[in-house]
Amino acid sequence: MRYTPAGVPMVGCVLGHQSRQIENGIERSVMCELQVVALGDIAKTLSTAVAGMEMEATGFLAAKNQRSKMPVLHLTNIKFVEGNEHGLQAEEKG
Amino acid sequence: MRYTPAGVPMVGCVLGHQSRQIENGIERSVMCELQVVALGDIAKTLSTAVAGMEMEATGFLAAKNQRSKMPVLHLTNIKFVEGNEHGLQAEEKG
Repeated sequence: MRYTPAGVPMVGCVLGHQSRQIENGIERSVMCELQVVALGDIAKTLSTAVAGMEMEATGFLAAKNQRSKMPVLHLTNIKFVEGNEHGLQAEEKG
Repeated sequence: MRYTPAGVPMVGCVLGHQSRQIENGIERSVMCELQVVALGDIAKTLSTAVAGMEMEATGFLAAKNQRSKMPVLHLTNIKFVEGNEHGLQAEEKG
Protein backbone atom coordinates (compact mmCIF):
# COMPACT_ATOMS: atom_id res chain seq x y z
CA MET A 1 0.00 0.00 0.00
CA ARG A 2 1.31 3.39 -1.01
CA TYR A 3 0.15 6.73 0.32
CA THR A 4 -0.39 10.08 -1.39
CA PRO A 5 1.48 13.09 0.02
CA ALA A 6 -1.73 13.85 1.93
CA GLY A 7 -1.61 10.39 3.53
CA VAL A 8 -4.43 8.83 1.51
CA PRO A 9 -4.01 5.08 0.83
CA MET A 10 -3.49 4.35 -2.87
CA VAL A 11 -3.32 1.02 -4.68
CA GLY A 12 -2.70 0.37 -8.35
CA CYS A 13 -2.97 -2.85 -10.32
CA VAL A 14 -4.07 -4.27 -13.65
CA LEU A 15 -7.57 -5.64 -14.18
CA GLY A 16 -8.35 -8.05 -16.98
CA HIS A 17 -11.78 -8.31 -18.54
CA GLN A 18 -13.33 -10.79 -20.91
CA SER A 19 -16.87 -10.99 -22.22
CA ARG A 20 -19.05 -11.40 -25.29
CA GLN A 21 -20.29 -8.17 -26.87
CA ILE A 22 -22.48 -7.31 -29.83
CA GLU A 23 -20.78 -5.16 -32.47
CA ASN A 24 -22.63 -4.24 -35.66
CA GLY A 25 -25.12 -7.05 -34.99
CA ILE A 26 -22.50 -9.75 -34.54
CA GLU A 27 -21.52 -11.30 -31.21
CA ARG A 28 -17.80 -11.29 -30.61
CA SER A 29 -15.31 -12.13 -27.90
CA VAL A 30 -13.70 -9.20 -26.09
CA MET A 31 -10.56 -9.11 -23.98
CA CYS A 32 -9.16 -6.03 -22.35
CA GLU A 33 -6.63 -5.11 -19.68
CA LEU A 34 -6.82 -1.83 -17.85
CA GLN A 35 -4.50 -0.17 -15.41
CA VAL A 36 -6.57 0.73 -12.35
CA VAL A 37 -5.99 2.94 -9.34
CA ALA A 38 -7.95 3.16 -6.11
CA LEU A 39 -7.81 5.74 -3.32
CA GLY A 40 -8.98 5.64 0.28
CA ASP A 41 -11.29 2.88 1.50
CA ILE A 42 -11.47 1.28 -1.94
CA ALA A 43 -7.67 1.05 -1.92
CA LYS A 44 -7.84 -0.80 1.40
CA THR A 45 -10.43 -3.22 -0.01
CA LEU A 46 -8.48 -3.74 -3.22
CA SER A 47 -5.31 -4.43 -1.25
CA THR A 48 -6.99 -7.56 0.15
CA ALA A 49 -7.49 -8.98 -3.34
CA VAL A 50 -5.40 -11.87 -4.57
CA ALA A 51 -4.25 -12.20 -8.18
CA GLY A 52 -6.92 -14.07 -10.13
CA MET A 53 -9.88 -13.03 -7.99
CA GLU A 54 -12.96 -12.02 -9.90
CA MET A 55 -14.57 -8.66 -9.20
CA GLU A 56 -17.07 -6.19 -10.51
CA ALA A 57 -15.45 -2.80 -10.86
CA THR A 58 -17.02 0.61 -11.41
CA GLY A 59 -15.18 3.85 -12.00
CA PHE A 60 -14.12 6.48 -14.51
CA LEU A 61 -11.31 6.68 -17.04
CA ALA A 62 -8.73 9.42 -16.81
CA ALA A 63 -5.44 10.02 -18.61
CA LYS A 64 -2.51 8.49 -16.72
CA ASN A 65 -0.69 11.80 -16.46
CA GLN A 66 0.23 14.92 -18.43
CA ARG A 67 2.70 13.01 -20.58
CA SER A 68 0.82 9.76 -21.16
CA LYS A 69 -2.70 9.68 -22.52
CA MET A 70 -3.01 5.98 -21.63
CA PRO A 71 -6.40 5.70 -19.90
CA VAL A 72 -6.40 4.52 -16.29
CA LEU A 73 -9.58 3.27 -14.58
CA HIS A 74 -10.11 5.12 -11.29
CA LEU A 75 -12.23 2.82 -9.16
CA THR A 76 -15.29 4.23 -7.40
CA ASN A 77 -16.71 0.85 -6.38
CA ILE A 78 -15.55 -2.76 -6.34
CA LYS A 79 -17.33 -5.94 -5.40
CA PHE A 80 -15.65 -9.30 -5.13
CA VAL A 81 -17.64 -11.95 -6.96
CA GLU A 82 -18.03 -15.43 -5.54
CA GLY A 83 -17.66 -18.48 -7.69
CA ASN A 84 -14.91 -20.28 -9.45
CA GLU A 85 -15.92 -19.99 -13.07
CA HIS A 86 -13.45 -17.28 -13.98
CA GLY A 87 -9.78 -17.57 -13.16
CA LEU A 88 -8.16 -18.46 -9.87
CA GLN A 89 -9.96 -17.78 -6.63
CA ALA A 90 -8.51 -16.67 -3.33
CA GLU A 91 -8.37 -19.21 -0.54
CA GLU A 92 -10.57 -18.46 2.41
CA LYS A 93 -8.85 -18.22 5.76
CA GLY A 94 -10.33 -18.91 9.18
CA MET B 1 -14.05 5.47 -44.81
CA ARG B 2 -12.27 2.13 -44.80
CA TYR B 3 -13.83 -1.27 -45.28
CA THR B 4 -13.17 -4.60 -43.62
CA PRO B 5 -12.30 -7.57 -45.87
CA ALA B 6 -16.01 -8.47 -45.64
CA GLY B 7 -16.95 -5.04 -46.98
CA VAL B 8 -18.20 -3.57 -43.70
CA PRO B 9 -17.61 0.20 -43.32
CA MET B 10 -15.12 1.01 -40.58
CA VAL B 11 -14.09 4.35 -39.13
CA GLY B 12 -11.53 5.08 -36.44
CA CYS B 13 -10.79 8.31 -34.64
CA VAL B 14 -9.86 9.74 -31.25
CA LEU B 15 -12.51 10.96 -28.81
CA GLY B 16 -11.66 13.37 -26.04
CA HIS B 17 -13.62 13.51 -22.81
CA GLN B 18 -13.66 15.96 -19.94
CA SER B 19 -15.85 16.02 -16.87
CA ARG B 20 -15.92 16.37 -13.08
CA GLN B 21 -15.92 13.13 -11.12
CA ILE B 22 -15.99 12.21 -7.45
CA GLU B 23 -13.00 10.17 -6.26
CA ASN B 24 -12.68 9.21 -2.59
CA GLY B 25 -15.23 11.89 -1.71
CA ILE B 26 -13.44 14.70 -3.53
CA GLU B 27 -14.58 16.25 -6.80
CA ARG B 28 -11.86 16.39 -9.41
CA SER B 29 -11.40 17.31 -13.04
CA VAL B 30 -10.97 14.42 -15.48
CA MET B 31 -9.56 14.43 -18.99
CA CYS B 32 -9.20 11.39 -21.17
CA GLU B 33 -8.59 10.54 -24.81
CA LEU B 34 -9.64 7.22 -26.27
CA GLN B 35 -9.06 5.63 -29.61
CA VAL B 36 -12.44 4.61 -30.97
CA VAL B 37 -13.57 2.39 -33.81
CA ALA B 38 -17.01 2.03 -35.36
CA LEU B 39 -18.36 -0.57 -37.77
CA GLY B 40 -21.38 -0.56 -40.07
CA ASP B 41 -24.08 2.09 -39.73
CA ILE B 42 -22.34 3.73 -36.77
CA ALA B 43 -19.24 4.11 -38.94
CA LYS B 44 -21.33 5.91 -41.56
CA THR B 45 -22.77 8.23 -38.91
CA LEU B 46 -19.37 8.87 -37.36
CA SER B 47 -17.90 9.67 -40.77
CA THR B 48 -20.22 12.71 -40.95
CA ALA B 49 -18.71 14.15 -37.76
CA VAL B 50 -16.41 17.14 -37.90
CA ALA B 51 -13.43 17.57 -35.57
CA GLY B 52 -14.61 19.37 -32.44
CA MET B 53 -18.22 18.17 -32.53
CA GLU B 54 -19.64 17.05 -29.22
CA MET B 55 -21.22 13.62 -28.93
CA GLU B 56 -22.42 11.05 -26.45
CA ALA B 57 -20.73 7.74 -27.14
CA THR B 58 -21.57 4.27 -25.84
CA GLY B 59 -19.59 1.12 -26.43
CA PHE B 60 -17.20 -1.42 -25.00
CA LEU B 61 -13.44 -1.47 -24.50
CA ALA B 62 -11.32 -4.10 -26.20
CA ALA B 63 -7.58 -4.54 -26.58
CA LYS B 64 -6.30 -2.90 -29.76
CA ASN B 65 -4.80 -6.15 -31.06
CA GLN B 66 -2.80 -9.19 -30.00
CA ARG B 67 0.38 -7.15 -29.59
CA SER B 68 -0.99 -3.98 -28.02
CA LYS B 69 -3.13 -4.02 -24.89
CA MET B 70 -4.04 -0.35 -25.42
CA PRO B 71 -7.83 -0.24 -24.91
CA VAL B 72 -9.92 0.88 -27.87
CA LEU B 73 -13.55 1.97 -27.47
CA HIS B 74 -15.78 0.06 -29.89
CA LEU B 75 -18.82 2.24 -30.42
CA THR B 76 -22.27 0.69 -30.17
CA ASN B 77 -24.17 4.00 -30.16
CA ILE B 78 -23.39 7.64 -30.80
CA LYS B 79 -25.53 10.73 -30.53
CA PHE B 80 -24.43 14.15 -31.67
CA VAL B 81 -25.16 16.75 -29.01
CA GLU B 82 -26.46 20.17 -29.95
CA GLY B 83 -25.08 23.29 -28.40
CA ASN B 84 -21.88 25.27 -28.52
CA GLU B 85 -20.68 25.01 -24.95
CA HIS B 86 -18.01 22.43 -25.65
CA GLY B 87 -15.46 22.85 -28.40
CA LEU B 88 -16.06 23.67 -32.04
CA GLN B 89 -19.36 22.84 -33.66
CA ALA B 90 -20.00 21.70 -37.20
CA GLU B 91 -21.56 24.17 -39.60
CA GLU B 92 -25.03 23.28 -40.76
CA LYS B 93 -25.53 23.03 -44.47
CA GLY B 94 -28.71 23.70 -46.45
